[in-house]
Amino acid sequence: MTYYAELSPPPRTIMTPGPVEADPRVLRALSYPILGQFDPAFTELMNDTMGMLRALFRTSNQWAYPVDGTSRSGIEAVLTSLVSPGDRVLIPIYGRFGYLLQEIAERCGADVAVLEKAWGTVFDPEEVIAAIRASRPKLLAMVHGETSTGRLQPLADIGSACREYGVLFVVDAVATIGGVPVETDAWHIDAVIGGTQKCLSVPSGMAPVTYNERAERVLLARKKIERGLQGSVDSPLTGMHDGPAIRSNYLDLSQLQDYWSPARLNHHTEMTSMLYGLREGLRIALAEGLEARFGRHRLNEKALSAGLSAMGVTLYGDPACKLPVVTCVDIPDGIDGESVRSMLLRRFGIEIAGSFGPLKGKIWRIGTMGYSCSQKNVLHLLGAFEAVLTRHGMKLHTGAALQAALDVYENTEV
Amino acid sequence: MTYYAELSPPPRTIMTPGPVEADPRVLRALSYPILGQFDPAFTELMNDTMGMLRALFRTSNQWAYPVDGTSRSGIEAVLTSLVSPGDRVLIPIYGRFGYLLQEIAERCGADVAVLEKAWGTVFDPEEVIAAIRASRPKLLAMVHGETSTGRLQPLADIGSACREYGVLFVVDAVATIGGVPVETDAWHIDAVIGGTQKCLSVPSGMAPVTYNERAERVLLARKKIERGLQGSVDSPLTGMHDGPAIRSNYLDLSQLQDYWSPARLNHHTEMTSMLYGLREGLRIALAEGLEARFGRHRLNEKALSAGLSAMGVTLYGDPACKLPVVTCVDIPDGIDGESVRSMLLRRFGIEIAGSFGPLKGKIWRIGTMGYSCSQKNVLHLLGAFEAVLTRHGMKLHTGAALQAALDVYENTEV
Repeated sequence: MTYYAELSPPPRTIMTPGPVEADPRVLRALSYPILGQFDPAFTELMNDTMGMLRALFRTSNQWAYPVDGTSRSGIEAVLTSLVSPGDRVLIPIYGRFGYLLQEIAERCGADVAVLEKAWGTVFDPEEVIAAIRASRPKLLAMVHGETSTGRLQPLADIGSACREYGVLFVVDAVATIGGVPVETDAWHIDAVIGGTQKCLSVPSGMAPVTYNERAERVLLARKKIERGLQGSVDSPLTGMHDGPAIRSNYLDLSQLQDYWSPARLNHHTEMTSMLYGLREGLRIALAEGLEARFGRHRLNEKALSAGLSAMGVTLYGDPACKLPVVTCVDIPDGIDGESVRSMLLRRFGIEIAGSFGPLKGKIWRIGTMGYSCSQKNVLHLLGAFEAVLTRHGMKLHTGAALQAALDVYENTEV
Repeated sequence: MTYYAELSPPPRTIMTPGPVEADPRVLRALSYPILGQFDPAFTELMNDTMGMLRALFRTSNQWAYPVDGTSRSGIEAVLTSLVSPGDRVLIPIYGRFGYLLQEIAERCGADVAVLEKAWGTVFDPEEVIAAIRASRPKLLAMVHGETSTGRLQPLADIGSACREYGVLFVVDAVATIGGVPVETDAWHIDAVIGGTQKCLSVPSGMAPVTYNERAERVLLARKKIERGLQGSVDSPLTGMHDGPAIRSNYLDLSQLQDYWSPARLNHHTEMTSMLYGLREGLRIALAEGLEARFGRHRLNEKALSAGLSAMGVTLYGDPACKLPVVTCVDIPDGIDGESVRSMLLRRFGIEIAGSFGPLKGKIWRIGTMGYSCSQKNVLHLLGAFEAVLTRHGMKLHTGAALQAALDVYENTEV
């Protein structure tokens, strides 16, 4: 039989746009013994998680719970539950993850219209609002923080317009939740998807979502109860509805919300260990305080950007819409970006990312997210990056990066 | 702000049909630091996992990997990737999880025909084979071990007939994998879904699947590459195909297999911690030896059944097709099954299960799965169960259960 070695992951400093280092307290939570999914001690942890997710999403929505899958499972759950075949969906796209929304909406059978913006910029909200007026979609879906390009899309005005014109507003906040303000209620967002493995620093595996009564009405009109459960006499939930059936069972929010409700109608087997981890990650984020947490992300971004600029590399993209938690750097002509990434990993144990599609081979992406977003990591990265680029033949202002970053930290400290 | 207490799950002996207690070595693996999903140290762990899954499923299939979600995500991934709208699907049903297969296939748009068998029994393979001959479906899906009734369906002859008539044979082995033999290749199964949180004793969160070239041909004919990735120049994977698009992005096996292939085409962010846990659970199962593991499950079932019979309660269902890892007990007239379950949990820290649909309130279900399948747990359960039933007014042969179980263990010990 083949021999498989004992698990022993090498130590890493993870400065990608996700997954990032998990908080050690979250890792410890993952290792606690299992509880049964209907054990009262466990359902209490589920309820705690819902309460903390409401605070994280800044919403008074009843429904705020994780979908059991990675971030895109949450996106697909929201879209497949809200979008019926033939529905008109508008998707403004300014990077890779906008295309993912398009792809998922198309697989739902939607009649999808897109707006496209050059990668590296975002939309002027008025452009999106004009398109809403012109096409009157049922639903508009867009990305809040686009990690493929490192840009942040302002959403408040678009949300107001969606509400005014009766459009459901769905936001992919996978990259921003917990690191950048996401104002679900204030921005009139009807459904939001967050990520765990980025600014929350919980390992990939769950997709927190929240949605309001406007969204709930749409999915309840499509609700079906599982055949194997229909005989349950104590179910307060009845029968069939008229809307077109939701095409997924696993990602059907009308069933998931029954599972997360006091009825606890059996659906999947909740991911016990991941739920422990998510709950702990939320506890840590709320104990730090969301405003303080956003401030920490801004500070480390400032130090990182100052260091990179002082070193003599060029930041990619329009600075007016920079995503605070991802900093993109142009790969200089004549430099093999993958060779730099590989040497950083192999020699320094530091991981940074490349990008996708048209930006593949053109930029590096450096994340400052969650537990990875620390003074220690930023300084470690700057020193190593300078050395590796020098080793690749670049002429840099050696030594300047760390001094510039230290200036930021010293001048900002209270 | 609301105060959320530190995580502190109470100690439990989990004797349900899943989730069951996770092996402490698996829990430790969950707590190891994160690696990036494209870190060579991580992709090596992914490859290890594929190798061990092939051994677990007893297959030489190229594809054997986990879907990132709970067990039913794996079932839906297989069905939504293989079944196009209008396809004829035959589903023999003998309990709740057969209805789940029906529900998922219907949501895929299949033309579903079902065979139904009274709960508590299974099909004579000849009945299923006659239906295959009569209806010539494209695909037949059925459950191997039905936890809702505690029955085990023989599959070998059905698999041979499926191969003979050109029918794709899909098996839900969520409850059996790792506890009862599952012979993917020998039984001519084209796609199998296993569970982690049962006989593998890994927390819920991943769904291992395997499928052969016959299944792969079907899904490759439907393959699409994500728009956001089409510009990747180093992708060995080309364009669009003619079949009807797979309706899910998240559960699209044609994309997942590219992610698990050396191409590593970006899809979701792999669940690092869960993958650590699954890999460790597989290592433990293969180190024990599958035959020894099946033997341990049979031994503890024998001791449990002997104890329950000696106590004076009645086992539910046809003994000829009993599922070795779930033992069902009739709830006697006049006894409140939920009150018994609750007292077991509250006083003894032991969890057993009720059942679903027509069996709700009629039977208790006791699991002997994976790490929970131990002499210690069986003896602990028998003593506690006798005490709680006595407390509920039943007249039992007190003291007989533990003696009968000890007889089994002492007479079987080598």
